[in-house]
Amino acid sequence: MRHFRSGCPIASALDLFGDRWSLLVIRSMIMGASSYSDLAGIPEAISSNVLADRLRRLEEAGLIEQVAIRRGAAKGRYRLTAAGAGLIPVLQELARWGEANIPQRWATPERFRNARPQDFETGDGGLPGAD
Amino acid sequence: MRHFRSGCPIASALDLFGDRWSLLVIRSMIMGASSYSDLAGIPEAISSNVLADRLRRLEEAGLIEQVAIRRGAAKGRYRLTAAGAGLIPVLQELARWGEANIPQRWATPERFRNARPQDFETGDGGLPGAD
Repeated sequence: MRHFRSGCPIASALDLFGDRWSLLVIRSMIMGASSYSDLAGIPEAISSNVLADRLRRLEEAGLIEQVAIRRGAAKGRYRLTAAGAGLIPVLQELARWGEANIPQRWATPERFRNARPQDFETGDGGLPGAD
Repeated sequence: MRHFRSGCPIASALDLFGDRWSLLVIRSMIMGASSYSDLAGIPEAISSNVLADRLRRLEEAGLIEQVAIRRGAAKGRYRLTAAGAGLIPVLQELARWGEANIPQRWATPERFRNARPQDFETGDGGLPGAD
């Protein structure tokens, strides 16, 4: 049983991904990253052990899942679950806030600004142990 | 000069408040908390040193500011800056996500769901050193 600090939906969400890296993994998957090496190559220079840890935690939290391509294929392709794709509006608001409040940030790509949760092919997943 | 990991507005926003506590302080201020003891009493049981650290960082980031009540008054009343109140839509999306994706969370109070950045009396603030 996961420990949540309180019943607050915000606090509980931050218990799952309240750190500097988890939402960047989700951001990059919204932008099309799916393999371990895609994610290792993000511009923020994530270290390999941090990436591996966050992928494991995001998977445990039911936000991403590994995709079985074929038996024996190299491991490490990921996709968003429905719960993970459900974070798109949160990230779009964060991007809007960053653009408006921090000088000289990159413009948000149109692909990101227009992304919608329902456009992501996701597994049944979502809640851990729900399938 | 603050170090940002990249020019991405999301990454940069998380450089300012990407941790488990900072956004909970903002959440509580949206709900009316303004003094140190208000914030020390949130249901997530924040420790005193973590709260002091987050208040200092949020102030440095230009998201909150101390309110001078009168000369010699006890320190420690805070209000959101315009940039801090600008996080309301981010937090509302986070609350929506938490309610939809984590079982048995508290219902979001109407006061929070209906909060709007423009309803907060804020200082000129925003960016550090901008005034």
